Amino acid sequence: MAAKSQKTKNVKKASKPLKKTAAKTKYQKVYFFGNGKAEGHGAMKDILGGKGAGLAEMTNSGVAVPAGFTLTTEMCDQFYKNNRQFPAGLAKDVDANIAKLEKAMGMKLGDEKNPLLVSVRSGAKESMPGMMDTILNLGINDKVVAALIKKTNNPRFAWDSYRRFIQMFSDVAMDVDKHLFEHALTEAKHNIADKIGKEKKDVKDTDLTAADLEKLVGTYKAIYKQAKGADFPQDPKTQLWAAIKAVFGSWNNDRAIFYRQKYNIKGLLGTAVNVQAMVFGNMGETSATGVCFSRNPATGENKFYGEFLINAQGEDVVAGIRTPQKISLEASREWAAANGIAESERKAKFPSLEEVMPATYKKLLSYKNMLEKHYKDMQDMEFTIQENNLYMLQTRNGKRTGFAAIRCAYDMVKEKLIDEKTAVSRVLPEQLNELLRPIFDRTDKEAALNSGRVLARGLNAGPGAACGKVYFSAPEAIAAAQNNKEKVVLVRIETTPEDIKGMVIAEGILTALGGATSHAAVVARQLGRVCIAGCGALNIDYANKLMTVNGHTIKQGDYISLDGFTGEVILGQVKTKPSEILQALIEKSLDPKKSGLYRQYKFIMDAANKIKKLGVRANADQPDQASDALAFGAEGIGLCRTEHMFFGGDRIKAVREMILAEDVAGRQKALAKLLPMQIEDFTGLFKTMNGLPVTIRLLDPPLHEFLPTKEVEVEELSQEMQVSVDQLNFKIKQLHEFNPMLGHRGCRLGITYPEIFDMQVEAIIKAAVQIKKSGRDITPEIMIPLVGHIKELQILKDSAVAVIEKVLQESGVKLKYKIGTMIEVPRAAMTADEIASEAEFFSFGTNDLTQMGCGFSRDDSGKFLPEYVAKAIYDKDPFQTLDQTGVGRMMQYAIENGRRVRPDLKIGICGEHGGDPDTVQFCHKIGLNYVSCSPYRVPLAILAAAHAALK
Amino acid sequence: MAAKSQKTKNVKKASKPLKKTAAKTKYQKVYFFGNGKAEGHGAMKDILGGKGAGLAEMTNSGVAVPAGFTLTTEMCDQFYKNNRQFPAGLAKDVDANIAKLEKAMGMKLGDEKNPLLVSVRSGAKESMPGMMDTILNLGINDKVVAALIKKTNNPRFAWDSYRRFIQMFSDVAMDVDKHLFEHALTEAKHNIADKIGKEKKDVKDTDLTAADLEKLVGTYKAIYKQAKGADFPQDPKTQLWAAIKAVFGSWNNDRAIFYRQKYNIKGLLGTAVNVQAMVFGNMGETSATGVCFSRNPATGENKFYGEFLINAQGEDVVAGIRTPQKISLEASREWAAANGIAESERKAKFPSLEEVMPATYKKLLSYKNMLEKHYKDMQDMEFTIQENNLYMLQTRNGKRTGFAAIRCAYDMVKEKLIDEKTAVSRVLPEQLNELLRPIFDRTDKEAALNSGRVLARGLNAGPGAACGKVYFSAPEAIAAAQNNKEKVVLVRIETTPEDIKGMVIAEGILTALGGATSHAAVVARQLGRVCIAGCGALNIDYANKLMTVNGHTIKQGDYISLDGFTGEVILGQVKTKPSEILQALIEKSLDPKKSGLYRQYKFIMDAANKIKKLGVRANADQPDQASDALAFGAEGIGLCRTEHMFFGGDRIKAVREMILAEDVAGRQKALAKLLPMQIEDFTGLFKTMNGLPVTIRLLDPPLHEFLPTKEVEVEELSQEMQVSVDQLNFKIKQLHEFNPMLGHRGCRLGITYPEIFDMQVEAIIKAAVQIKKSGRDITPEIMIPLVGHIKELQILKDSAVAVIEKVLQESGVKLKYKIGTMIEVPRAAMTADEIASEAEFFSFGTNDLTQMGCGFSRDDSGKFLPEYVAKAIYDKDPFQTLDQTGVGRMMQYAIENGRRVRPDLKIGICGEHGGDPDTVQFCHKIGLNYVSCSPYRVPLAILAAAHAALK
Repeated sequence: MAAKSQKTKNVKKASKPLKKTAAKTKYQKVYFFGNGKAEGHGAMKDILGGKGAGLAEMTNSGVAVPAGFTLTTEMCDQFYKNNRQFPAGLAKDVDANIAKLEKAMGMKLGDEKNPLLVSVRSGAKESMPGMMDTILNLGINDKVVAALIKKTNNPRFAWDSYRRFIQMFSDVAMDVDKHLFEHALTEAKHNIADKIGKEKKDVKDTDLTAADLEKLVGTYKAIYKQAKGADFPQDPKTQLWAAIKAVFGSWNNDRAIFYRQKYNIKGLLGTAVNVQAMVFGNMGETSATGVCFSRNPATGENKFYGEFLINAQGEDVVAGIRTPQKISLEASREWAAANGIAESERKAKFPSLEEVMPATYKKLLSYKNMLEKHYKDMQDMEFTIQENNLYMLQTRNGKRTGFAAIRCAYDMVKEKLIDEKTAVSRVLPEQLNELLRPIFDRTDKEAALNSGRVLARGLNAGPGAACGKVYFSAPEAIAAAQNNKEKVVLVRIETTPEDIKGMVIAEGILTALGGATSHAAVVARQLGRVCIAGCGALNIDYANKLMTVNGHTIKQGDYISLDGFTGEVILGQVKTKPSEILQALIEKSLDPKKSGLYRQYKFIMDAANKIKKLGVRANADQPDQASDALAFGAEGIGLCRTEHMFFGGDRIKAVREMILAEDVAGRQKALAKLLPMQIEDFTGLFKTMNGLPVTIRLLDPPLHEFLPTKEVEVEELSQEMQVSVDQLNFKIKQLHEFNPMLGHRGCRLGITYPEIFDMQVEAIIKAAVQIKKSGRDITPEIMIPLVGHIKELQILKDSAVAVIEKVLQESGVKLKYKIGTMIEVPRAAMTADEIASEAEFFSFGTNDLTQMGCGFSRDDSGKFLPEYVAKAIYDKDPFQTLDQTGVGRMMQYAIENGRRVRPDLKIGICGEHGGDPDTVQFCHKIGLNYVSCSPYRVPLAILAAAHAALK
Repeated sequence: MAAKSQKTKNVKKASKPLKKTAAKTKYQKVYFFGNGKAEGHGAMKDILGGKGAGLAEMTNSGVAVPAGFTLTTEMCDQFYKNNRQFPAGLAKDVDANIAKLEKAMGMKLGDEKNPLLVSVRSGAKESMPGMMDTILNLGINDKVVAALIKKTNNPRFAWDSYRRFIQMFSDVAMDVDKHLFEHALTEAKHNIADKIGKEKKDVKDTDLTAADLEKLVGTYKAIYKQAKGADFPQDPKTQLWAAIKAVFGSWNNDRAIFYRQKYNIKGLLGTAVNVQAMVFGNMGETSATGVCFSRNPATGENKFYGEFLINAQGEDVVAGIRTPQKISLEASREWAAANGIAESERKAKFPSLEEVMPATYKKLLSYKNMLEKHYKDMQDMEFTIQENNLYMLQTRNGKRTGFAAIRCAYDMVKEKLIDEKTAVSRVLPEQLNELLRPIFDRTDKEAALNSGRVLARGLNAGPGAACGKVYFSAPEAIAAAQNNKEKVVLVRIETTPEDIKGMVIAEGILTALGGATSHAAVVARQLGRVCIAGCGALNIDYANKLMTVNGHTIKQGDYISLDGFTGEVILGQVKTKPSEILQALIEKSLDPKKSGLYRQYKFIMDAANKIKKLGVRANADQPDQASDALAFGAEGIGLCRTEHMFFGGDRIKAVREMILAEDVAGRQKALAKLLPMQIEDFTGLFKTMNGLPVTIRLLDPPLHEFLPTKEVEVEELSQEMQVSVDQLNFKIKQLHEFNPMLGHRGCRLGITYPEIFDMQVEAIIKAAVQIKKSGRDITPEIMIPLVGHIKELQILKDSAVAVIEKVLQESGVKLKYKIGTMIEVPRAAMTADEIASEAEFFSFGTNDLTQMGCGFSRDDSGKFLPEYVAKAIYDKDPFQTLDQTGVGRMMQYAIENGRRVRPDLKIGICGEHGGDPDTVQFCHKIGLNYVSCSPYRVPLAILAAAHAALK
């Protein structure tokens, strides 16, 4: 009974995926593909597996694929149900398909003249890379190897193929310990060491000659016989059935079972088995192998692009021993020109495929067109020409640069190949980054690379290209830039808020310490500066104004170039040019109509804006940043960090006066000086944003960040402030903190020094009143940082409301305003229900929430976080991409509890993560209202939000 | 209909609480008490309110209470239901009760010879302190004031009483703005400034003479007339009804409504009104007033204890203008002897109540006995003798020292007054602390206080008394103690692990910086050392080996004394003596049978151990600490901090060698030296704990804590290690962290340097194997610190299991072991379900969980946390008492999710909070299996766990 019911079940199961296919394919055991026609197709992954369906699809698209056939996943299922026996009738069907295959290829298994070799590969519905078995070169034996030698005139290749096959087949199909073969190989290499004059350990596989390999094949066969008590099987069909059995068996090996458990892959029938003819590009001058792209993957230009080698195997193209030739004549000529090769030499030594095999080239061109049309995307293809027969081995959507991505997407819409939504989905948000940054002149950069001028690599913390003279201090950088109009690169062990003016003026910033969210990196991103952070190889000597890097000494005033895309630090000058988009959008120095790139960018961003649901704001502290943000499409300011306003010349003096004051009266006196400046700051921002929402965060950093740290600076300050150096040092020591991240900052300052927050609130409201009086609308949002406890918020909100009502009463203006809070302390996330009863909005400060939630200091974690990412403890740096499982869970908990208490609670995120595409998509998923990020990341966030909405 | 049904409801509502009382009390509107009998009793809080029920209860207990009556809460309910009209028949009942009251007191309202004054007070079922209104001295008028003058011969008192009554009555009952009276009072004071030769602002209320006050009464009456358009009411009954109305009205004032909302007080009928005769102890030589305790509140001795003053008001006893006299003759004589007062002088100037009023004394004695028997607890009583009539004004359970608490509890069980459970509930866990610490000789301490030798106050971080010579560095302290057998007090700006030997050898530790969980405080508690931390007044000058404190200069070698109970730093020597319990329990220097205190302690602890459900373990790193912990009743070790084992002489060398090693091989070489030492450590612990569970935490602190910080120490280390100073400094700089709390420590060390954890695991298992081989049982628990991500635990657990299985295989011993984790990173708490899939136990590290959860660094929070506690943002320092709302919620979330995945998950807590009684009770509530705390806090934790179980 049980068996019967199970059988019925199986039939049902199996019939389901088949519904889409024709009735005649029901119960078909083996599916053939080849000669331009396949019995299956791309939608049949259930029974053909991913690879089998892909091969069928490619065949059906009209290109020549090495023929083959696929044993269905149902066969695997039956195999296990039958106690690891092949289902009845399978052998017959396989035999029939072998015959078809031999006919299609014009070759025969085991033939002594024209032997067919095949690959036997697994392929389940879901990709399980590396988990199951593969056998190549099946069909080779003592006679076939001789035939191969004859055909290829390459005995080394033939013997090496045989050797590899014996090892692979014995290990995978016959369970012979593969180490036995590896030992034999090692021994063979040691044996020739003296002969070729190398140390034993230095001998490579490629040092073995055809004769050596022939001898090794003998040894391998002996090993096999010793292990199995029988000769190595010479009959290709015997080989084939053993290989099929092995692939079916590998479905339930430990690795595969573990993989399916880990990735929760369930309900599959088993693996399919793909038997496909092997083709060789090294069968003489009528054979070749190559790779090509349907469009240029660097520029996106719709030109056929690729390389090939005559009489070569696939790995030869990659290995770089021979110089690959270009496929099209045009590309070949361009290449020769760029490399200073005369046309005659080119034609003789490096002719194009178009010239050498014009018919095959034409065919390849038509394949390219067919495949791109079929897959509706730029294709990256591998092909082999075997004795004038062109075979496409693989095609996939091609990887491309940002420039190519946006151009392809735009062009393909114009070509009516894809629609707008698809175009948006084709550009990765990160790729936009590239389009916005200054770039190196490609030739100049290549020259630098080729001449060994790359000094070191650091973290690519701010993309773009920068070139300038090195300065090791902000004042000297500023002086050089202002007085001598020099382009400067600021190099620091690490940066602090005191360096900010130097950072503004520098082309690029290079630091020895700090991670992706270090001060340098964060500010650089906000300013749109090129930045390489945490470049450990720098040995900076401030005293002598120089640094040594891997043996080179760079003095103040020497040129270096920073590639913020790659993290490369390059000695000397490399020519840069600004992004066309920036020229058109921000600098207004380029007529947008004249820029193709801008046109493409605008097209994609417009489409993305139509698609996205999530709001995108910017983090901006100054009107110019706000104006950039608007140009980039920001819908408001999500975070104005008021502390950045405190560093200007006169301001820092007043701030320091306030910090050094001994009592409330003294602080208030200093704050009174800051008040008009802050009013001006906020008025400027409000004006620029013209009615869009502006969220202003009250003072956040600990006060010691505003005091100098160096002796000489302390002395200067002492004179300026008329306060003794001792007193200053005492105050600095008093304010010192062991763990400043967990110290006296944020709303804690507001609790202990209410007058600071009061001044800021007064300034915000007075600025808003000015705007309102001028007839424009404004709803300022006041954000209180680092709240951990509802009572902090209550106290500070009460205090703010009192100040606000007083200002409004005095001014006689009516004004809406909101008071909300950052959610950046884990305790706040845990008690979000309490906090939502007071807060009118939440903004997740995910930098701090990550620091405290994960217990990582962003300033220190560089010491171990790379190892954490390397060991896959975190998939990505949690300061760059939000840790969704941990910090994300905390956010979800807070959202759920906050909205339970206040259903219309507006929730945003304003940490550095707000500009990270993965995080933006997560924010969309968990129901945030908006993300806020630095202006230069706004386009990325918009695009990521569109991608999230498309999912 | 609606009105009717509501009426029925009310009857039902009201009848409910009345069920317990006799049928005749049904619907009774007013309840009388006086003359030794009350119509109500203590269980009638529903209708008499808390105060009314208490007065009835006290009256019924047989003591004389100033007579009075209570208008029920039902009257208040009816008052509101009747649109703020008094219920019908109430006036009649009040009149009848006034008559009773006048008879009981032998005085009459408004009488010109013997006037009765009354107080009118609110009193709901639930205490709502300060929310509702009270009027005192009601009944006073122009005629009565004259009578009072005559009776008391104290015109100032009489006029002041009148003045106060007018103000209070006008404000509370008649809604006259009280500021008007306050202005008049201020003016009156300013007017006499010249006359008495004071600045206006310095004139006090007490500077006003009877004549001034009489004049002020005139002004007050004029203010009243101005405000109300009528004369101030002279009729006492008019006054009374206005007062009753005001008290009823105050039930629904904003403050009271807010209070009930805030504390979720629901379902009450309203407030009762208590009208009670006022009595005066200042009516001549036959009057007096005093306070007394039924037993000695300092020692618990069953001796009557109290003070009084003839012809005085209650506030005079407290004011300290006159020296209060003792109540009993015995106490009076003892007091005189202690203060060097001759018997003749004592008798003349400070006679006891027993001598002055023997009959009244006898009565007071009998009242004392009655009340203690009635309330079954030591009573703190207030009494007034008015013209030879003794009245008890208040009795409540008396506050007492730890010594008194335990003695009373013990004695009362022996006296059969209370049972064991009650006895356990009578001793507060914190009080045990006092019993275990060395104490100052009381007389000597008082002498020090009286002679102004208290230099400053700090945080009472480690209770007890310590006296010794000041040393400002650990090495000098050690030298002085070891070479010269000096008792030393170690004074540091702050302590670090390098000071640990000095801390061990010191009597007491005093620091200028740091809070309750600073290194100094934590280690001091663990070592049982007296400690005063964060004493900001210290100005320590290491270079000159001295400190200045509020103008005093203390040099190295000078004596100071530390009162760790109070935080007082005292100049010079104060005699100390060790706790008897310690002598008996730990030092074994005292025969337990000879110590009454020990007997009491043992009795209470045995009872507590029977009651509690929660396990109590200790944090201990050394066998001697473990042995102390056992003596204190610990049931295992919940936290062995292995880093403390790394600081011994040879060990720190090997540790430093490991840190300075450039590669794995170098580290392994150094670790090999540590291995045998660690095996010895763990073997010792296991032996001492004899089968009880021992949880060992792998290395937790960042490596830089093991390196020296001072130049001279670096130079020493350089010579010792044969490493250049530059190299050392480079390493130290390399290891420096901006936020070490969030840095490279805990399991992060295990991830980057697996060999360190491997060595420790090997040592633990080898030690356990030795124990097992010797025939004893052992299940070591290996705890991995600072886990934030399941993958950290997976990697480190896999690595540990590999080491363990290897050791076990080699030894041939079978052993159970557990691998668990600290939950101290918020992320771990948030992903406890994932982590529980790997962890066999959880231990909450609430120090770090508080630091990261609340975002407070325990080393820095001293700068703002006191203000936070002062502003009631946190009720208590969250590093001392767990923040239940925030951090506690995180714990509950983790427990819930952890046990969902692993239902039998053992969960404990091993932060400093494990010894805090409130936290222990919370841990009981949320279902922890055990708490773990420093050995000296184990008894507190046991008692707190018992209290939790009793609740």
